[in-house]
Amino acid sequence: MSSEAESQDPPAFLASVLGRLVSSDPTLPYVTLTFAQSLDAKVAGRGGLQLILSGNESMKMTHWMRTMHEGILIGVGTAVNDNPQLNVRHLPFPAQGGHMQHYHHPRPLVLDPNLRISPKCKLIYNASLKAGETPWIISARPAKTESAVESQDGIDWEARKAALEKTGAKVILIERDPSHMLIPNSDSSSYLSMSAVLRAIRAEGIKSVMVEGGARVILSFLHNAQEGKQLFDSLVVTVAPVIVGAHGVGYSELLDDIPGLEHVRTEALGKDVVFGMKAMR
Amino acid sequence: MSSEAESQDPPAFLASVLGRLVSSDPTLPYVTLTFAQSLDAKVAGRGGLQLILSGNESMKMTHWMRTMHEGILIGVGTAVNDNPQLNVRHLPFPAQGGHMQHYHHPRPLVLDPNLRISPKCKLIYNASLKAGETPWIISARPAKTESAVESQDGIDWEARKAALEKTGAKVILIERDPSHMLIPNSDSSSYLSMSAVLRAIRAEGIKSVMVEGGARVILSFLHNAQEGKQLFDSLVVTVAPVIVGAHGVGYSELLDDIPGLEHVRTEALGKDVVFGMKAMR
Repeated sequence: MSSEAESQDPPAFLASVLGRLVSSDPTLPYVTLTFAQSLDAKVAGRGGLQLILSGNESMKMTHWMRTMHEGILIGVGTAVNDNPQLNVRHLPFPAQGGHMQHYHHPRPLVLDPNLRISPKCKLIYNASLKAGETPWIISARPAKTESAVESQDGIDWEARKAALEKTGAKVILIERDPSHMLIPNSDSSSYLSMSAVLRAIRAEGIKSVMVEGGARVILSFLHNAQEGKQLFDSLVVTVAPVIVGAHGVGYSELLDDIPGLEHVRTEALGKDVVFGMKAMR
Repeated sequence: MSSEAESQDPPAFLASVLGRLVSSDPTLPYVTLTFAQSLDAKVAGRGGLQLILSGNESMKMTHWMRTMHEGILIGVGTAVNDNPQLNVRHLPFPAQGGHMQHYHHPRPLVLDPNLRISPKCKLIYNASLKAGETPWIISARPAKTESAVESQDGIDWEARKAALEKTGAKVILIERDPSHMLIPNSDSSSYLSMSAVLRAIRAEGIKSVMVEGGARVILSFLHNAQEGKQLFDSLVVTVAPVIVGAHGVGYSELLDDIPGLEHVRTEALGKDVVFGMKAMR
C-alpha cells in the first residue's frame, strides 16, 4: 500500500485503542474520553480558558477521532468560550469523491442545563451550510422557581429553548439531578447525571461518543471513574512539552488513582505524544 | 551499520538533546535535569517516596545518560530512602572488551548538609568493588550550636564526616546559605545554594552532571529556573501512562511558567515517552 493511500485511513494507533467502538452495555454509547494536557498535567489555563497545546500532527489525530465517532460531546463552557466547530477538517483530501463530505462529521452534543449556547454559534451556522451535523443540546427543564434565570439576552429558559429549536437544533431533556454534579463543588447549574446524559444520547441512536472537553466535563468523567463509576471505554491523552504552572487547571488533585485503566499504545506525534488506554467498565 | 553495532552507541535522542555536554559557563558543569513522572505530573508518591514509573526502555535511556555524564547528582533523601547504585547497568554487552567497565560510570554526588548518608550505603560498597566511582558528599559545616545535631547512630557531624572519609568517600564543604533553600518552605537543613554546589563540583573537575532526583532537588532546579536562575542546560522528562492522583508529589503548583525552555525531541519508548528540551541560560 502506498503511503498516500495509507494516509487516508485512520492511524493504526486509533485502531488499536478504539477497536470497533462498540459499547459492552447496549443502553450506553461507546465513550472515548480525550484531552490535551501540558507536561505538568494542566488541561486549561487560568479561569478554565482554552490552552492551545498540541501541534499539527496531534490535531490531525483529533480529527481522525472525530470522524470515527457518531457523536462529539462538550460542555457549555467550551461551547460559549471557544465557539468550536467540532467538524472534521485537516484530513488528507480523499483520492476519490473529491470533497470533505467523504469524511463523516460527528453529531455535536452540548451539555447545557441552562441553554446558554447562542443560536448564532458556529455549530448551528456550520450545520446550515452542511459543514457539520445539526447539534443536539442536552438540557433539563428548570424547576418553576428557577425558570426566570436569565441569560445576557434577557429571555428565559423556555424562550431560549424555542430560539434554539427554530434553528433546527434539537433540545434533549433529561431530569435535573442535584445529587450528580458534573464535578464536586461546581455550581448548581451543572446538576446533570453523566450516566443519564449518556443513556439519553444512546436512546437517541448515538452509538459512539468522543468527549472533547472542556476541563469540567473531563474532570467529571475522571472523578466518576475514581468513584468506581466508569463511564468511558477508552482514554486518549495528548501531552505537549509545555509547562503551564500553578495558574492552569489540572485534574490530579481531584483524584486518588483510577482503577481499571490499561495501557494500549504510546505514540510520538511531532513534539507531542499520545497515550491510548482502555478502561475496564 | 548493523542494528547490533548501533545499539552500543547512545540513542540519537540523547545526541540531539545533550549535544557535546559543554557548559557555556566555564565555572559551572553542563547540567542535565532528568526525572520520570506520571501522566498527572507526579514525581514521587506519598511523603516523597519513590514511584516506580518507567519501563525497561526508559530505564535503558537513563543508563545511557549516566554513562554520558561525568557526575550524577542526587539529594540525601533519595540516597537514604532508596539506597541507589547510580552506576551504569542494563546496557548492551560490549562486542569488544567484554566487561561492563567498557561503559564509564558517573561519579555519584550527594547533597547532604547533615551527612545523613550511611557509610554502609550501596554507593560506597559498589565503589569498593570498582562497580562505581567513589561518591562525593556535598555538605556544609554546621554552626557551633548545630554541631550536636545527631543522626540515628548518635554521633555528631564531625564524627560522621570522619566515618565517611574513612571509607574513601570525599566530603566537599561549601558555605551554608540560609537565603538559598533547596525548595521554598523546606526545613533549614536544606540551606545550600544550588549554584554554589554546582560551582564546587566544577572546581573539583566535574564538567557534566546529570541530576537524577529526588523530588526536592528537581523542584529546586525548576523553582530556580522560574525565578530566572537557570541552572540546567537540558531537561529530559520521561512520562509514564499512570495516574497517581492527589497523594503524589508534583511540581506544577510551585511554578508559574519556565522561561527559555526549547523543545528538541520527543520519542516514544515502549509505554513511556521521553521529552528532551534545552534551557537557555
